[in-house]
Amino acid sequence: MSTPSMTLFHSPASPFVRKVMVLLHETGQLDRVALKTIVLSPVNPNADLNQDNPAGKIPALRLADGTVLHDSRVILEYLDQQHVGNPLIPREGSARWRRLTIASLADAILDAAVMIRYETFLRPQEKHWDLWLDNQQDKIERALTHLEQDAIAELSSAFDIAAISVACALGYLDFRMPDLAWRKRHPKLAKWFAEVSERPSLKATEPPVA
Amino acid sequence: MSTPSMTLFHSPASPFVRKVMVLLHETGQLDRVALKTIVLSPVNPNADLNQDNPAGKIPALRLADGTVLHDSRVILEYLDQQHVGNPLIPREGSARWRRLTIASLADAILDAAVMIRYETFLRPQEKHWDLWLDNQQDKIERALTHLEQDAIAELSSAFDIAAISVACALGYLDFRMPDLAWRKRHPKLAKWFAEVSERPSLKATEPPVA
Repeated sequence: MSTPSMTLFHSPASPFVRKVMVLLHETGQLDRVALKTIVLSPVNPNADLNQDNPAGKIPALRLADGTVLHDSRVILEYLDQQHVGNPLIPREGSARWRRLTIASLADAILDAAVMIRYETFLRPQEKHWDLWLDNQQDKIERALTHLEQDAIAELSSAFDIAAISVACALGYLDFRMPDLAWRKRHPKLAKWFAEVSERPSLKATEPPVA
Repeated sequence: MSTPSMTLFHSPASPFVRKVMVLLHETGQLDRVALKTIVLSPVNPNADLNQDNPAGKIPALRLADGTVLHDSRVILEYLDQQHVGNPLIPREGSARWRRLTIASLADAILDAAVMIRYETFLRPQEKHWDLWLDNQQDKIERALTHLEQDAIAELSSAFDIAAISVACALGYLDFRMPDLAWRKRHPKLAKWFAEVSERPSLKATEPPVA
């Protein structure tokens, strides 16, 4: 058992951290990274984290030489180049751009879901803005519809950066927005998610019970 | 004069679009991209755009074969691989991760500044939340302090993805948050920005008068 050479600023509830953890599982690199658990929110920053990452966000990855990398996309690509297996992010060609675009769409789902979470959970109730919430929810629905109608075959073709990102987005919707009931409207996506959820990498990184 | 083979969903006020435009200037690819100007906000989506990019965000880049790439980071890297000059995103090694991390910090400045813009400009006044605004502003200040104290030499070393991203972030602060008066507290960053602002790529892409 080697001593971990890297430190990952971590929270079990963060879907952006989860993407990194899933990649570490899938590429056999878990023992290279020590986890430093951080509690934070946009209105309750963490001073320790801010010293290493002035953006104040997780995940951040401190390397052996003290360099700190962020955000999740940079970390994912860095870690994907540190193992000898098949890359989970295609290195070049049209596959690279398409898979990264699907991953970006998954991140957009997450951004919208996190915005909804902040609005409904952090912000005082009298300051909630329904038009904002509705538009964030519409964005999620449009993205899910695209995945269901146009991307399901691509998603099923490999468990790579695109699939990891979409799985973490769907897992976050289940975690924070169970009332969305997205499976009813997106049965192919639901079937795909049920299948990939059996992977050890996703089982081991499920969000805590809300 | 060749016919543009790509279409960029564009707004002259978007700092994320500006990064792409600056890269097109710097790499001599302007004539390869037609601009499709889009008017949108998070509470006033654009149906045309949503068809091509369900995330409903700009920039999005439609390629000759109809494929649409997003978001700005994916587009920047794609376009950086379509020219024969020096790459503006290092292809590998520690330079890649450090330059992308600085770019990510610049994006975090932009995300916070855009959040402040949405809060103060779009959201009804009685629903403004000071604690949220204060924390977004703190994030910007922390990031600027890091750039001033720890990254100025790196920024000055090359006008690449890191410098482009920081320049577009500072330009957006001037455009939307002039009262921030960041130059007083960050003189080295101010000097650097004054110098790079003379570049044709930045001059040609200045945001419109607010």
